[in-house]
Amino acid sequence: MNDSKFIAIALEEARLGFEEGGIPIGAVLVSSEGKILGRGRNQRVQEGVPILHGETSALANAGNLHHSLYKGATMYTTLSPCDMCTGACLLFGISRVVIAENKNFVGGEAYLKQRGVEVVVLDHAECTELMERFIRERPELWSDDVGGKPKK
Amino acid sequence: MNDSKFIAIALEEARLGFEEGGIPIGAVLVSSEGKILGRGRNQRVQEGVPILHGETSALANAGNLHHSLYKGATMYTTLSPCDMCTGACLLFGISRVVIAENKNFVGGEAYLKQRGVEVVVLDHAECTELMERFIRERPELWSDDVGGKPKK
Repeated sequence: MNDSKFIAIALEEARLGFEEGGIPIGAVLVSSEGKILGRGRNQRVQEGVPILHGETSALANAGNLHHSLYKGATMYTTLSPCDMCTGACLLFGISRVVIAENKNFVGGEAYLKQRGVEVVVLDHAECTELMERFIRERPELWSDDVGGKPKK
Repeated sequence: MNDSKFIAIALEEARLGFEEGGIPIGAVLVSSEGKILGRGRNQRVQEGVPILHGETSALANAGNLHHSLYKGATMYTTLSPCDMCTGACLLFGISRVVIAENKNFVGGEAYLKQRGVEVVVLDHAECTELMERFIRERPELWSDDVGGKPKK
């Protein structure tokens, strides 16, 4: 398993987002054969589009794929996926979600498992620190990004 | 209630999508005061972006809003919302989802209700006919749009 390699790429996306003044959450969609299908980062600030979270950006950047390509794929994300990104993983039939950390936010992990998706949480220190710093510095921006009710 | 008025606008979006050769699903996000915050239609074909469904397009076109503006808002959609669009409504804290029809597809209606969202299904004949026609004419495109497993 190359989980640490792909999470490092998701973190690279998150760091780019932070440098751009955005919300530092990144994601990478990887096929069952280990090929990167798409990578992206939250674009609320940069593009002014609130539905472009890390995971949905990675899916958007992957473009239109035949539905069979999502089977066996893994979504790597720097933060526990929100309800929308949880639903996006379910819609496309992604098999596995690897989450760098869920200390700063807990999204739809339980629902993913309930629907048959494998969920792995890594407890990744650098991802946790980057997100902690962002939430401390920009609490209102973070609040808008998660519907005003961030839960830890 | 102006449900029929706003569903007519969602249908207008869906018809535009059909004319463009796209997937004919439209949506309108309306505030608690009856103001249209955003409207949109599925853009998989037109923009090549698989996460731009009707509802997510309406949310994208509404732009970045303060989280309080979604409270009491209604999402009008021509078709029962898929898992991603269900999750998007939950993320932003939309209070009510009005669905024109669920004969051609049943999405996350039960989960929305379970999470406290009011769900109304109208059984709208024109929306049903338009979607039926699209699925009959473009079954593979429809299959890709809903992860390969459309359920009736």
